[in-house]
Amino acid sequence: MSLFVSGTVALDNLKTPSGVRKKMLGGSASHFCMSASLFEDVHLAGIVGKDFLAKHLQLLKNKGVNLSSLQRTNGKTFEWSGEYKNGNFNEALTLKTQLGVLEGYEPKIADSQKKISNVFLANDDPIIQNKVLNQIKKPRLVGLDSMNLWINIRKKLLLSLIKKVDLFVANDGEARMLTKENNLIKAAKALRRLGPKLIVVKKGEHGVLFYSDDLMFSFPAYPVEKVLDPTGAGDTFAGGLMGCLAQSKRLNKEALKQAVLYASVLASFNVEGFGVEKTSRLTAPMVNKRMKEFLKFMHPIVC
Amino acid sequence: MSLFVSGTVALDNLKTPSGVRKKMLGGSASHFCMSASLFEDVHLAGIVGKDFLAKHLQLLKNKGVNLSSLQRTNGKTFEWSGEYKNGNFNEALTLKTQLGVLEGYEPKIADSQKKISNVFLANDDPIIQNKVLNQIKKPRLVGLDSMNLWINIRKKLLLSLIKKVDLFVANDGEARMLTKENNLIKAAKALRRLGPKLIVVKKGEHGVLFYSDDLMFSFPAYPVEKVLDPTGAGDTFAGGLMGCLAQSKRLNKEALKQAVLYASVLASFNVEGFGVEKTSRLTAPMVNKRMKEFLKFMHPIVC
Repeated sequence: MSLFVSGTVALDNLKTPSGVRKKMLGGSASHFCMSASLFEDVHLAGIVGKDFLAKHLQLLKNKGVNLSSLQRTNGKTFEWSGEYKNGNFNEALTLKTQLGVLEGYEPKIADSQKKISNVFLANDDPIIQNKVLNQIKKPRLVGLDSMNLWINIRKKLLLSLIKKVDLFVANDGEARMLTKENNLIKAAKALRRLGPKLIVVKKGEHGVLFYSDDLMFSFPAYPVEKVLDPTGAGDTFAGGLMGCLAQSKRLNKEALKQAVLYASVLASFNVEGFGVEKTSRLTAPMVNKRMKEFLKFMHPIVC
Repeated sequence: MSLFVSGTVALDNLKTPSGVRKKMLGGSASHFCMSASLFEDVHLAGIVGKDFLAKHLQLLKNKGVNLSSLQRTNGKTFEWSGEYKNGNFNEALTLKTQLGVLEGYEPKIADSQKKISNVFLANDDPIIQNKVLNQIKKPRLVGLDSMNLWINIRKKLLLSLIKKVDLFVANDGEARMLTKENNLIKAAKALRRLGPKLIVVKKGEHGVLFYSDDLMFSFPAYPVEKVLDPTGAGDTFAGGLMGCLAQSKRLNKEALKQAVLYASVLASFNVEGFGVEKTSRLTAPMVNKRMKEFLKFMHPIVC
């Protein structure tokens, strides 16, 4: 089954202790597409400006991403400049944000894409996410991601959106912020009460917690020693999760555990390279090899 | 095979959002004994004063703990008063520490205990830990725990001790402090280079990382919603780990994974009650029931 994602497509400028990169392909939807396209045909909705790099468009096309709902208009592409200082990869320091064409963006979903059964609203202004969701016709599964900024300035709208989706992914900080619960099990249960049947709390290097009415589990993260750039790890995770779930006929316990395993493995590749440098080159054998290592690493039995 | 532990035996006064307790049985060795005694005969070395409560001694005896090397002298028992504020259970606020009989304590290990094959040096002044280790004769397995205080003020001696042991357990903060590595995989490898073949990094609510030359794994923590008092969770973990390893004929991969699983389960009981209130009442069926739940929770396959 196909997969539809709406989110930001950006140009990222990044400085870390390992190096500097300019105008990389960035944005929540771009990172999502890298991992999701390993599983399914992905349809992307978003907006870029005239300055968007042709090679980035080509990369998305090469990944089989359908760009019918990607608008290209006059103006500048959304551009983010950030820094990770002193080996602290837990939080990026934002140096500059240029909204560009995001200001005044009116999402228009191609008719052929309005009936896609698996939908993900990657991190974006909840106003945009809401406008996208209103154009979609009864999907099987809708997932949602957000960030601290929107929890702060668009909480009411975000909560109304959360109520309408099936799957909500949040990192631990966002989960605590939204629910005011310090204990993550309590926070996951509180998120469930906000509406979504499936709750995924990402804990970065500490792995992930999944919660639903009849299934709760936690996995560690795949052990990465050399973190180069964690930007987009959560989006890559979400792409793997949704891609894997879109492939599963039923959203049963087995499918949910498997999807979280794949999502974790894919996110681990993301942090090992700048931007999409590593995730854009992934192949099924590379992913499956790491999955085997991951299972060895986290399995209670020696395998 | 029997198990020997040296560490503090204390009276703990605690204040948390859930309540207040006075003169509870506390100390690293006491907590260790609660979980270790579920697996093996435990021999305890330490010191208490005349004010130590008879009911605490009786509890240790009821657990089958051999007290031949527990000194009882004039003076006050080591007493710790602490507080967990505002539901933040990550760090205790120490209100008062009364060293009492710990000052001038000269450990004397009973002859019959000097040949015990499994030894654990629970958190204590490295000067004491060193004096104990010097009396022990070629054990099969020696484990060591410490804390930030000793890393700060006894680093040189602590490092010389670490060099002599087989197993070192540290929490994530201590691992980072000792190795100056922020990444926990790198920190675990750096600890391995300090000497011990087996490294266990405890991450509290995020679980545990194990590292040795031919085995690395990570498990999440058993999900606890109602944390009452995390004091001694690390000692309870160590008791389960050493107790389980003492029972295993060989320290192979299977035994190590199993021991870390039991240690995690036992630590989860600790945090659910004040002091040893919950761990002192544990039975094998209670532990095995939770182990089944834990395996369900962390197993990559639905089971």
